[in-house]
Amino acid sequence: MKYLVGVDLGGTKISSAISDLSGNILHETVIPTLAGEGEEAVVGRILGSIEDVMKGVGAAASALAFIGIGTPGIVNKKEGKILRAYNLPFIDYDLLRPVREHFRCPCILENDANAAALGEYHFGKGEGKKDLIYVTVSTGVGGGAVIGGKLLEGSTGNAFEVGHMIIDPKSEIQCTCGLYGDLEALSSGTAITKRAVNAAEERKDTLLSQYSNITPKEVHEAYQRGDKVSEEILLEAFTYIGIACANLITLYNPEVLVLGGGVSSIGDLFFDTVIGSARRNCLDFLFDACEILPSGLGKDTGLKGALAVAKMGLLNQ
Amino acid sequence: MKYLVGVDLGGTKISSAISDLSGNILHETVIPTLAGEGEEAVVGRILGSIEDVMKGVGAAASALAFIGIGTPGIVNKKEGKILRAYNLPFIDYDLLRPVREHFRCPCILENDANAAALGEYHFGKGEGKKDLIYVTVSTGVGGGAVIGGKLLEGSTGNAFEVGHMIIDPKSEIQCTCGLYGDLEALSSGTAITKRAVNAAEERKDTLLSQYSNITPKEVHEAYQRGDKVSEEILLEAFTYIGIACANLITLYNPEVLVLGGGVSSIGDLFFDTVIGSARRNCLDFLFDACEILPSGLGKDTGLKGALAVAKMGLLNQ
Repeated sequence: MKYLVGVDLGGTKISSAISDLSGNILHETVIPTLAGEGEEAVVGRILGSIEDVMKGVGAAASALAFIGIGTPGIVNKKEGKILRAYNLPFIDYDLLRPVREHFRCPCILENDANAAALGEYHFGKGEGKKDLIYVTVSTGVGGGAVIGGKLLEGSTGNAFEVGHMIIDPKSEIQCTCGLYGDLEALSSGTAITKRAVNAAEERKDTLLSQYSNITPKEVHEAYQRGDKVSEEILLEAFTYIGIACANLITLYNPEVLVLGGGVSSIGDLFFDTVIGSARRNCLDFLFDACEILPSGLGKDTGLKGALAVAKMGLLNQ
Repeated sequence: MKYLVGVDLGGTKISSAISDLSGNILHETVIPTLAGEGEEAVVGRILGSIEDVMKGVGAAASALAFIGIGTPGIVNKKEGKILRAYNLPFIDYDLLRPVREHFRCPCILENDANAAALGEYHFGKGEGKKDLIYVTVSTGVGGGAVIGGKLLEGSTGNAFEVGHMIIDPKSEIQCTCGLYGDLEALSSGTAITKRAVNAAEERKDTLLSQYSNITPKEVHEAYQRGDKVSEEILLEAFTYIGIACANLITLYNPEVLVLGGGVSSIGDLFFDTVIGSARRNCLDFLFDACEILPSGLGKDTGLKGALAVAKMGLLNQ
C-alpha cells in the first residue's frame, strides 16, 4: 500500500496526517510548533511529526508516495522555499531539502491558503466542479483559485493574494502590509477585533466594554445580546467581504465560491450579509451562476489541504 | 494552402481578414454594419465580407481551416449564440449556424474583449509569456485573462467582466449595467465624457465649455492647453484604472498586463497615472513581477483578436 502525507504548518501547531491515495485520513497527530526554538528545531519537529503518523499505520518511508506541506506566508514553490512567514522562524529557507533527504520521498510545498483551496476542491465543496474560488477569513484573509482542476499560480507562484485586493480606496484603515483599504484591513478577524477594542474604549453605548479579551467571537456574542455597535462592526466587515466576493465572481465566473476560516464560522449573520452584499455588487447573470457556500472541511481544512497538495504532486509527477 | 478567417463584428463596422495559419494577414476588408437593417441583413453582410477576403487571395471555401468571430456583448460560446450586444440587432441569436452552413467550415464565436486578449497573447505583447491580462478602455471597459495559453472562461464562459468590478463602493456614479462605482462607471470613455460635459455646463473655470462636442480626446486636448478641470477628470479616471490593475496583479500575478482601447491611446498621462496608482495599491513583490504595457496591436486589435480565436479553435480541434 502507498500513502500520502500532509503537513499543516502553523505558527502555534504542526498537524500531520497520513492517508491512502484518495485522501482518506488513516492517522493524524498535532504537536506544538515552538517557533521560538528556531529553524532547525522546527524542522526536526516536522520530521518527527511525519514519523509519528507513519508509525501510526506501520508505514515504511518507501511506502510514502508524496508529502505535501502547507505553510503560511510567501513560498517559492519551484525551489521549495519559504520566503517569509509571520510567526515562523523561516526566512528564505529551503524546507523541502531536509524532508526529502530524511524520507527519500517526493515532497511539495504550498501556501496554506492555496492548499486549502485545493483541499476544498478535491475533498470538500468542489467535488465535480470545474472551477472553485476559496476565501478564508480568520486572523488574516487569504485564498486560492482552482481553475479547471489546477491552482492558479501566476508568474511567480503568488497569484490570488485576495486579502490585499483594494476594496475601499478611500479608506484610511491600513493593513499590516502597508496598503490602505484592502480586504484584510477591512474585514479580517484582526480588523474586527481592532475596531471592537477601539469602540470598547471610546464609546459608552456598547456591551463590548464588558469584555476583558475581545475577539470576533466576543463581538458576535455582544451582537447576539443586542449590541448595536457590535452589529455595525460585523455588518461593515461582512459587507466588504461581499464586495470582494462580487469582484471575484465578476472576474472568475466560478461555479462555486467557498468561504472558510474562523470568522466565517459566525454562521448565518456572516453568510447572509456577505451573500446579500455580493448580490448587490455583481451582475445578475454572473451572481446567479455561482453558489456561495461555507467550507465543507471546517477544522480539517489545513490537513485536507496539505493532503490535496500531496495528491496534486502525485498526479502531476 | 489553408487559411484562417477573422471577423471583427462591431456596432458601426464589420472588419474581416484572411491570414495564413500563423496569423499573417493576407487580405482584409471593412464594411458598414448597418445594424438598423436587422439580423438577417447583418448576417448577410458578414457572409459577404468573408467572401470578399476569400476572393482577395483566391481561396475556396474548402481551403478555410477555421473562422473566428469576435463580437461585443454576452456570448454563449458552446451554443455559438450572441445572447445580447449593445448596438447590434442580435438577441439570443445563433450566429454560427448560417456561417457554418454557408462555408462548411468550423467556426467559433468569442466576446471581442476576450478575442483581443488572445490576439495580444498570440500576436502582440504576450509572445513567449505564460499568462497575460488584457484590459481595454474605450467607450466601455472590458478585457480577458490568458492563463497558461488558455482564455480564462469561467463556468458559463463569462469570466473577466473587468469593467464591472467594483472599484469604489462608496461612489454614487451608476454604470449602465446598474451597479454603482464599477470600473466602467468610473473610468470608461463614456464616464470621462459625462463628467466633462457636466463640468462644461456647471463650471466657468474650464476650457471644456469651448467645445461643442466633447469626447475623451477633447478632454485631453483641454488638459494639454492647461485646463485644470480636465486634468482632474482624467487623473481621477486613470487613478481608478490603476487600482483595478493593482487588484488584477494581486489576483492573477501575471507576467504582463496589457492596456489597450481608445482612451489608452492618450499615451503618457494615461500610462504614468495608471502605473503610479497601480504601484501604490499593490504589494511590491507582485507589482515588480508584472510589466504594464500598451497594446502591441493598436487598431488591428479586433482583427488580430478574431484571427487568434480562429487559431485557438484550430489548435483545440
